[in-house]
Amino acid sequence: MDVFDAIRTTRAMRRLDPNRPVRDEDLWTILEAASKAPSGGNRQPVRWVVARDAEVRRRLGEIYRACWAEVGARYRRVVPPDDRQTTRILDSADHLGEHMGESPVIVVPAARGADPASVYPAVQNLFLAARALGLGTALTTVHKLREGEVRAVLGIPDDVETYAMIPVGYPLGRWGEAERRPIEEVTYWDGWRRTRPRGASV
Amino acid sequence: MDVFDAIRTTRAMRRLDPNRPVRDEDLWTILEAASKAPSGGNRQPVRWVVARDAEVRRRLGEIYRACWAEVGARYRRVVPPDDRQTTRILDSADHLGEHMGESPVIVVPAARGADPASVYPAVQNLFLAARALGLGTALTTVHKLREGEVRAVLGIPDDVETYAMIPVGYPLGRWGEAERRPIEEVTYWDGWRRTRPRGASV
Repeated sequence: MDVFDAIRTTRAMRRLDPNRPVRDEDLWTILEAASKAPSGGNRQPVRWVVARDAEVRRRLGEIYRACWAEVGARYRRVVPPDDRQTTRILDSADHLGEHMGESPVIVVPAARGADPASVYPAVQNLFLAARALGLGTALTTVHKLREGEVRAVLGIPDDVETYAMIPVGYPLGRWGEAERRPIEEVTYWDGWRRTRPRGASV
Repeated sequence: MDVFDAIRTTRAMRRLDPNRPVRDEDLWTILEAASKAPSGGNRQPVRWVVARDAEVRRRLGEIYRACWAEVGARYRRVVPPDDRQTTRILDSADHLGEHMGESPVIVVPAARGADPASVYPAVQNLFLAARALGLGTALTTVHKLREGEVRAVLGIPDDVETYAMIPVGYPLGRWGEAERRPIEEVTYWDGWRRTRPRGASV
């Protein structure tokens, strides 16, 4: 798959098929892709904790459900009902809130006090590689509200930070480009808020 | 370019050709790729401050030089002289320390109090897209030591955080795969430190 196609069509897939297994070999492939991302001084701080066991996933799912219930309710209070795009995201996030534990695989990147700049680029590599293999993913961080419980389930030491809880599986929804603001609106040239249209000279 | 080839061969390119210009259209392309990355609730918090002007770049380069002088010296003190890989990285980082300001383009992602999980995946998209176009990049964050000075040069408000200083240009060095630890060593299955070889069943 072309890298631009992968970038364009990689979006959060929050409805995953609980019954379609993910091959180990595909997991190795996407984890290896993740490991190619940069890290400060090439220290490669991330450890990838992969939950395959059904009971481990179920327990992670319980924690995630509790966290999302709290965060999702907060969002619902502030999103205007006529904001259909955000409402659609919240609906699918609610689905994930209920079903995280049934994801065929859950990946938790963890590291001892790493700069996030040495973690999340790797997560994006993992997402793009998964997309190329037809596997859906979503970046969630709300588990941080109960990070101690996540550590307990996975036996992660207290001084190790967890950076995400990522469901992996074959999507039930369709791929497709995520909606974004025009890049011309969020690009500033040589100074804050200095936008210019595409095609204009500096 | 295939997404896996892009992922495999995107590495920090710290020696860039100061005399070979980068096309505006290529910048739009890599910024648009960046914008496709996920952000919490699709809030898209990142603004891309792109330094093109020679004087703006020169001033950013001065700040970067001072920051790297401090950080680089700290690294040098702790790296054993026989650690050739790290020494090689430090040598090229020293080069960038001296020449950041001559990079044809410098990109500074900025946002008001965004979760880094909504910033660095976009940075990785930008890197991969740049790679596909033959453009080199490097992820640096040492400018944070003098972030106030960076804000002053770019007119960025005090309540806006800057997440990286990214040189963009045609590389003088060659592409090639970065060295990483075997993925089997850094992947744990269903619990901390539970490694297993590739091909083994759970």
